[in-house]
Formats: sequence, C-alpha cells, structure tokens
Amino acid sequence: MKPFSPIDPAAVKLNDPVFAGRVEACRTSTIPSSVAKCRETGRIDVFRLAWKEGMPNRPHIFWDSDFAKVLEGMALMLALNPDDQALAGELDGYVDLVISAQQPDGYLNTHFTVVDPENRWKNIYDCHELYCAGHLMEAAVAHFRATGSRKFLDALCRYADYIATVFGSEPGKIHGYPGHEEIELALCKLADATGEAKYLKLARYFIDERGKQPNFFELEGQQRHASLNVDSLANRQAHIPVREQTDAVGHSVRALYLYTGMADVAMRTGDPSLLDACRTLFDSVAGKRMYLIGGCGSTPVGEAFTNDYDLPNDTAYAESCAAMALVQFARRMADATGEVRYADVMEQALYNGALSGISLGGDRFFYANLLTVDDATFTFGHIHTERQPWFDCSCCPTSFCRFLPQLGSLAWSRRPGELRCNIPAAGSVTSGGAAVKVSGRYPYDGEIGFEIISGGNFVLSVRIPSWCRSWSAALNGKPLETGAKEGYLTVSRDWKAGDRLELRLELTVDVVRANPKVTADAGKIALMRGPVVYALESVDNGPGVSTLIVPAEQAFRLGEAEGLAGVPAILGEALRESDESEGRLYFRNRTPSRTRTGFIAVPYALWQNRGKSELATWLRSN
Amino acid sequence: MKPFSPIDPAAVKLNDPVFAGRVEACRTSTIPSSVAKCRETGRIDVFRLAWKEGMPNRPHIFWDSDFAKVLEGMALMLALNPDDQALAGELDGYVDLVISAQQPDGYLNTHFTVVDPENRWKNIYDCHELYCAGHLMEAAVAHFRATGSRKFLDALCRYADYIATVFGSEPGKIHGYPGHEEIELALCKLADATGEAKYLKLARYFIDERGKQPNFFELEGQQRHASLNVDSLANRQAHIPVREQTDAVGHSVRALYLYTGMADVAMRTGDPSLLDACRTLFDSVAGKRMYLIGGCGSTPVGEAFTNDYDLPNDTAYAESCAAMALVQFARRMADATGEVRYADVMEQALYNGALSGISLGGDRFFYANLLTVDDATFTFGHIHTERQPWFDCSCCPTSFCRFLPQLGSLAWSRRPGELRCNIPAAGSVTSGGAAVKVSGRYPYDGEIGFEIISGGNFVLSVRIPSWCRSWSAALNGKPLETGAKEGYLTVSRDWKAGDRLELRLELTVDVVRANPKVTADAGKIALMRGPVVYALESVDNGPGVSTLIVPAEQAFRLGEAEGLAGVPAILGEALRESDESEGRLYFRNRTPSRTRTGFIAVPYALWQNRGKSELATWLRSN
Repeated sequence: MKPFSPIDPAAVKLNDPVFAGRVEACRTSTIPSSVAKCRETGRIDVFRLAWKEGMPNRPHIFWDSDFAKVLEGMALMLALNPDDQALAGELDGYVDLVISAQQPDGYLNTHFTVVDPENRWKNIYDCHELYCAGHLMEAAVAHFRATGSRKFLDALCRYADYIATVFGSEPGKIHGYPGHEEIELALCKLADATGEAKYLKLARYFIDERGKQPNFFELEGQQRHASLNVDSLANRQAHIPVREQTDAVGHSVRALYLYTGMADVAMRTGDPSLLDACRTLFDSVAGKRMYLIGGCGSTPVGEAFTNDYDLPNDTAYAESCAAMALVQFARRMADATGEVRYADVMEQALYNGALSGISLGGDRFFYANLLTVDDATFTFGHIHTERQPWFDCSCCPTSFCRFLPQLGSLAWSRRPGELRCNIPAAGSVTSGGAAVKVSGRYPYDGEIGFEIISGGNFVLSVRIPSWCRSWSAALNGKPLETGAKEGYLTVSRDWKAGDRLELRLELTVDVVRANPKVTADAGKIALMRGPVVYALESVDNGPGVSTLIVPAEQAFRLGEAEGLAGVPAILGEALRESDESEGRLYFRNRTPSRTRTGFIAVPYALWQNRGKSELATWLRSN
Repeated sequence: MKPFSPIDPAAVKLNDPVFAGRVEACRTSTIPSSVAKCRETGRIDVFRLAWKEGMPNRPHIFWDSDFAKVLEGMALMLALNPDDQALAGELDGYVDLVISAQQPDGYLNTHFTVVDPENRWKNIYDCHELYCAGHLMEAAVAHFRATGSRKFLDALCRYADYIATVFGSEPGKIHGYPGHEEIELALCKLADATGEAKYLKLARYFIDERGKQPNFFELEGQQRHASLNVDSLANRQAHIPVREQTDAVGHSVRALYLYTGMADVAMRTGDPSLLDACRTLFDSVAGKRMYLIGGCGSTPVGEAFTNDYDLPNDTAYAESCAAMALVQFARRMADATGEVRYADVMEQALYNGALSGISLGGDRFFYANLLTVDDATFTFGHIHTERQPWFDCSCCPTSFCRFLPQLGSLAWSRRPGELRCNIPAAGSVTSGGAAVKVSGRYPYDGEIGFEIISGGNFVLSVRIPSWCRSWSAALNGKPLETGAKEGYLTVSRDWKAGDRLELRLELTVDVVRANPKVTADAGKIALMRGPVVYALESVDNGPGVSTLIVPAEQAFRLGEAEGLAGVPAILGEALRESDESEGRLYFRNRTPSRTRTGFIAVPYALWQNRGKSELATWLRSN
C-alpha cells in the first residue's frame, strides 16, 4: 500500500464544536501565557548565555525543549494565521535569539553551554541533550514551513550535522542514542524539509542502535559510577533492540515518541521489520495498556507503563504528553497502513485523554489525567486534582502550544489520487486542486456533509468509526448502496464543485465494559457516545460520585449540563446508597439502603472546567 | 487511671492455633535464616570493623539495625527457652562481637566507623544513626532481661550517654532528632531496664524538639545543600511539633514508631498533652487511614500515609513493619488508657496485616501487603506478589525475628491487683503469684476457658471484642449475669486454684463494608469472622478472583481449604461473569451473563502459603 501523508495544518480550517475553540484558545491564551511563563522562569533569557552560577533561575536540562515547543506552536499558529504580523515579528525575534546561542561547532544547548560545559554528551541517559535538539529541529521545520525563511532551519541543520559527527557507528563516535527519545521523529521532519537523506540516516542509526549489546547506557553509566539495572534500561526502552520489543514499557512519553519515530523511519525507508515492531508495540499499548481515555502510563513511578491490564483509576498517571504522543503514533500508523483501527485509537486519545489535559480557556493544565478523583486522591509530584497554570517540569503546557494548531491536520490525510477524512470535523480542507467543505457538529452529532468546493478526479475516503453500529450515506441526495471497505466509505469519481456527500453516523449512548482482566474496572461501566468518553463530576451530581450506582440497562437521555452550553450531556437514573458507617472506617452486617436519583455525565475531557470537582469515569454499576 | 504494663514474654506460654506455631517457626526458621542472611550479606562481619573501600558488601547505613533486631529476637527467644544452651552461646558470641565495635567515646555504628567516619551526625535526616542506636538499645535490654548479663546493656548505656552529649537543648549540642524515629521508644526501655531517668529525659527531648521552628532538618539540609520542602519534613513527621500534629502523615513505619515512643513517654511522665496527641493521631490512623487488615501506608511513594480514606487495594503499601508498629502503638494506648478500642485495633492488625507479612514456615516475607494481587499487579522496589526470602532493605524479616516472640506478651497486661486478657490465646500466663491456664481455639473458635492454676485476690478482666455481637460467661459452671464494663468482663474475687471462668464469644461470618468515602471499596464487601479478615485466592477459586461477585445476603458456611488443615475457611455462593471482551481491552453494549459458582475464602494472613496465587480481599458484591 502506498502510505498516506499528513496534510499541512494550514490547509485545514475548522469550525467544529470541539477543535475550533481549542485552536483559538491556543492562539489567544496557551501560547501567550506559555511565552510569559517562559520569560518569567528564565527559559527565554537563558539563550543570551549570560547566566552565571549564583544567579536565580538555574537553567535546567530540559528548558530548551520547553521554549522550542512554544516556538513550534507559534510557527504553526502563524501558518494558520499568516496575516498576524505581530506574531510573525515576535517569533522572528525569538528565533534570532535562539540562533545566537549556537556555538561555533554547531552545538546549541543552553544548559550545557552556561551551566555544565564540561559535561556535554557525558550523561545521555539522563540529560536530555538530544531531546532538546529534537524539539529545536521540530520548531525550525515549522518555522521554515510557516515563513519560508531558512535561518532557523539552517542553524538546526548545522546542529544536526555536528551531532552526526558525535554519534554514529564509526570508530571514535559515541555509539549511543537518546535517553529521552524525540530526535528520531524530528530528524525525519528535518529530512523531509531539507530533502537531505543524511538526517533520516541519523534517525535510523539512533533507532537501530538502541538496546543492542554491549548496552550503551550501561557502558556510559559505568563511566559515571552509576549502575543501571534492567528496569532503568527498560524505562528508556533500551533493554533490548527495538525490533525485539513486544511490550510497551518504561516512561510512556519516551516510549511513544520512540514508536512514532520508528514509524516515521519505517515509512520513509520501507523497512518492514521496523513497521512490524511498530504494529506489535501499538497492539501492546492499545490492546493491553491504555486507559479508555487513550491515556498511557499506569504509575507515577517512572511515569511509566506497567503490566498488561494494570489500569488503576485512582493512581493513574496517563500523562497529557503521552496521550498527545499516542495520537501522533496512531496517526503515523494510520497513514503507514491505511488501517482504520489506528485512526480509531487516534480519535479516542484525541477527544479524551489528550484534550482533557488543557482547560477550555487554554491556560490551565493537567499533567497526569486521573480517572477517579476526590478529596482522598493522593497528589504528589505532577499529580494534581485541579488544573495548574504551569509546572516546574512544564512539558505538558508547552506540548499543547504545538499540539492544538495541528488538530485540523489530524483530521485529514492524503496520498496521490486520494483524500482521506479520518475525523469529520466541520470546516474545510484543500489539497492539491481539491477543496472540500465539511459541515455538521461532529463528534456531538452524526450528520455530516461533505461539499465539494473545487473538484477533480480523486478518491474521497471517509472513516466509518469502529464504534458506529449503523450508518448510511447519500451522494447528491441519492442513497449510496456501497458498503465501507475496511473501515472507510470510499467514493471514487470526477468530483464537481457542488457535489455533496451526506454521511449519517448513528450516535448512541454506549455502555462500555473493560476486559475482565482489568480488575480496577470489574463491575463497572463507562459511558461513551461516539468517540467521547463521559464522566460524572460532583459539580453536577454532588459529592460521592464514585459511590453512585448507574444501572447499565436504562434509557439514557441527552441534555445539557450547567456551564457547558452546546455540549451534549448524558442524563440517566442512578442509585445512591445510604451511609451506614456512622463515621467509622469499616462497619459490619449493615446493608445500606438505596434511593433513586438522577445523574448527569459530561465529556471526560471537559471535567474541571467549572471549578473544583470530584470525578468518576468508571462507574459502579449493578 | 493507673496504666497497665506489659507482661514479660517469658511469662506467657502458648498452645493456640495461630500464635504458637508462629513463635515456633520463628525459633526454628526465621531467626536461623535471618542470622544466615546477615552473615551472607556481611551484616555480622561488619562489626569486626575490617571492611575497606573496594571490598564486597559495602556496609549500609541501616545494617546495624537489621542485626540488632535479630539479636533482640534471639534474646527474646532465649527468654522463652532458657534451657537452649546453643542459642545462649551463639547470642553471647554475637553480643561480644557487637560490643567490640564500640568506639572509645561510646559511639557504636559500623557504617560511620568504617565507611564514612567524617560524616558522623552530619545527615541525621537520612542516615539512620539514631535509628540503629535505638535498635541496639532494644536488643541490649532484651539480652539483659533474658540473661541477667549487663555487658550489652552497659555498652548501650555508654552509647546513650555519648548521644546525650551530642544531642540536646544545651548550647553546642545538636538541637536535633532522628530522621527515622525509633530511639524514643528504645530509650524508654533503657530507662526501665536501668532505672535511669536520664534516658527517659533524652527520649522526651527528641519528641519535644521534633518539628519546632527553626526546623532542624531544614537547617541541617542547608549545610549539605539539600533543600527540604514541607513534604520532605512531613515524611519524617517533622513539619510541625508533635503535639500540633492531627493527621498521621509521612513514612508510616517512622510515624508509628514515633507515636509509640510518644505514648511510652506520656505514660512514664504522665504528660496529658502528649497522650492527647497520641489519641488524636491514633484516631487519624485507625479512623481514616488504615486498611481493614490493619495495614498502614497507602503509597509506595515515600512508603507513606496519604489522605483520609485513600486506601487503594491494588497499589497499597501496608508495610509489614508498619502493621507490627501499629500493634505496638495500639498496645501502648490500650495499656495507657485501658480503653478497649485500642486493643481491638491491636488485635485487628495482629491477626491480619502483621502476620500476613511472614509465611507459615517463617522464612518467606512480604514487605508490602497488597489487598488485590494478580498478574497485572505492578511490582517494583519492595513490592512483590510472591513472598521473598530476604530484601536488600531487610527491615521486615528482621522485625519478625523480634515480633513473633512477643506474641504471647501482647495477649496480656497487668496492673497492681489486675490481670487483663486482651487476646484469649490458649496457653498460660503467670504474673505475680497468679497463674491462669487458657484453653480453646481462639480466634477460630469462641469457646474459651480460663482455669486458675494459682490463685489470689485479684481482678481478672477479659476483653469482649467490639466485633462480638453476643457473648456469655459462666464462673465455675454458673452463668455470670454481670455485663461487660467498657468492653471488659471484669471478675474480682479471691481466686482459688481450680476456679474456672468460661467465656463464649459468638463468632459469625460478618459482611464488612467500608465508609463510602473509601472509593476503592465502593460496591465491595469483605468477609471477617471475629478478628480475622478473609480473602479469596486463586489456588482455591481459579483465576480472576477479583471479578467474582459475592452476594452479601447468603448463608455462608465453614469448611476447610486444601493445604490449610485446622483453619476454618468460609464457603459460599458466587457469580462469575462471562467474558464478552473477545480479547479486546474495552467493549461496548454487551452485557456479560452470569453463572453460579462456589467460593472458598481463607484468612488473609495465610495467603500465598500454598504457591503463587491471585488475591482479592475486598470482593465485588451486588
């Protein structure tokens, strides 16, 4: 199969009820507030290389990546709004500042330039140098695509060329690979933007070398008297070569960035063993280690994947960055294989565990996305029960700066002769000579219209989601009898302007259960409508949402929750048990009585947008 | 109220169905295997002070405490078996070895003598020096009581005297207190054994100084450029003065050792504010932060208490040492106040979360005691799903060496004119001139006989457990009409040899529910019979025990599980749901069907004694 390619974010305009508002909040709030936070914390000024020991705001090893992600977001946003001169000017200034920090040899890392110059490349396992480099490359590529200017891109090419003199299989080079993966996928973007195969080659080297014996991280660790056990290696996905890895292990963001880079390299090199490894690892994630919301990472210990079916709701991690990374990995797999199941998971992570990480206003964040929250929830480190404006380790807010402007491009893919809609978000897309307008209120409504604005001879393929039990389509008013082919409704014709494809996806309130091996969800149900996971908040239902009993067999209704106008809420009947505990922790031989009550469920991703609230996603049932 | 005192362990003989076998396993297995492990790992040889950098088995900061606890266990076991010449000889040799490591100034710590002499008392927050000292003191006191020899005791008095020159309120001394509490309760024992009030004074200083401003740990941390935040201080219960602490926080073993020491000091000084603080902290533990098994510590992160009602079953910690410490704290509170509720909790922790930490054979251990275990259980650090013979940080195995020989003494307390039975374990007790023989099979049977072997004019008070809904008693065959007074059946008379008090405690299978605020247990039941918590193992019930549905309203029966002869098992009806997942992680709109099946529940403390098994303690119910 000829793989699909992404469509440029700027080629998609949105006016749907979910994405469009998020992109706008990113423009008006997420990016400006992240810039302000970067300034406040020293993450911008550090590029002046004027920091000295004893000054406040000691530059951290991951700072460059934070600001790089903001810059990438600004560039992507500029591509969406090419007339925004203020944004263009601000971005240009920052780019000059970043470039000014580049060393004569091409090295570009503020921490190891001003804080710890003697330890450059000495602790790749921990110190994020290649990770920061990757994010700068992504920013440079986005800047190049948005502005046409090569200055940032050329600087990062110089850095990448220098890195290629440091790392590689040749004698005298470090036979190593990043402790925090990311540069692999970034080098693929750099290769695409420049047409230079050498960057793809370096990406492939990092992937192929990973986990081989003798183990680089073990050897490196011995140099600094650190002993790394197999768990330490697995946390970095470096315990065995990537093609031998069958379980998604270790730090979930690292893992998913690696897998995304593997898929990128596999697509560009046509390496079937690498794509097979991606398939296997994807199945491990989505088939055994993923929360219903598309969240990954079942423990804060190492921010990591744990075991098959270990998906505790109250001590979840499900980092926002991991959900965004899963979206990207799934998107690569959907494009590489054309298989609908990858797009299904992309959509599941996107509408739930990714967007849950940011407030509707765009300026409050969850790092960890728990599925059950109340006053008892154990919060430490990056786990919070209320959205935060920033974190010391602020990967998630800055990830949203660059993730949200891509929402439109996630909806569509293309390959020669075919335009593919994976998510029918209302708006429009242009690709080659074709232009299509999408109408409707997906994912809140299943009636979707595709109107050809500019036609031509091409295939329009539209995903029929696997959650959809019944659907129908009509072309220019006439029912289409053709079925879906492997998950896609595929219409091939010489499209004329004004042609109209109508699609009706049946949206029902579905009762979801987990595989019985997921003991955390035993006896519980979740509610979904289409791709959207619903949850109960105490702002709607009063305290004790985890103790409400929601019978599975009932006529659920749609309505609206206060403060979430335009968003369908699910309404139904529940039972509330009496408290027979008399204030004690445990009590014997008293059967609580039950009273009937109603419940209101709202989309999981929208929780904690109306003040402090309890949360229950998996609901006690009967 | 005149407080109660413990009865010497050697004054109690046991032949009950739970404790007696555990003590014997400790004698024949736990102590010898711990000695062997201490020898193997270098924990004994280290006292020769011959270790040099570069040699194997680098002495760790907590090693002295491990071997001290084994020595304490040997001394307690010698007291139970005074004719065991081999044990006496072995112990004597070890005591000489330990004493030989004492420095001229009285200091006695192997790590800071051979590994890191320049850092003595430099990092009290982390480095366990006072903790190790306390365990050596406890061992020395036990050795003195078992043998009458003062050599170990005198050595530890010299150490304590030296410590009093280092720590205290006087100028030039360190105004500090232990980073791992324990020495407080040990100093009280030293004071009791020697009659020297100065040791009680030092214990009181450590307690009174703790958490005061300016904060010692913060000041100490600044010296070594470590910044301690409020969580770091709270992990050591040093965030505020102890009398202002209302919630049990931080590292659960540290906390419970501190509270035990506080109760010891309060009892000996008659300090009402300190005893009030103990009451408050006990209520925080037992009323809001304790697992049903008496386990404490809801997270492996910092091995710590978390929040009220946060008691996850699958990611529990419930360290064995914490349950043993809770037994000691509860015992102190029972003795200090005479209130039955403290003895109730002592019993609950003892028969469940403490004894679960060690195999029936005495040589396999749990460090963390989870309440739900299956293949998905996330294991790391000290969390295991199968019992282990030893741990790198082997506090729990060595704690059992000294805990099990005390089981008999936990059953009884005394004060002038009164002999109090808190746990009617079969066996005998002698105290003053009185001797009482106890018959029966408590806690597996509620018929208990107390036969006076040697009489006198005294009060015999016997606890009526709060879990007991119906009981009766007879004296020399005649029904006793007198009720229980504040939880105790109290018979005051001039007891003659041959007098016989018969007590019948009704033992029923009880359905236990948790306070609805414990969301982890919502919709679930646990089964208890008397003080014993029951649980389902897959060795009896097949895999998937967490998914079995156990209706609360049914006629539970008693039986026996294979491989656990003599232990009542609970038998009943359960429902098993069909697996409709088709191997997927989540599935929609399919209602699993249910088939009837039986279940067998065994005492929680006995799980994993018959090979690898799944575990469910809180059971899905209807």
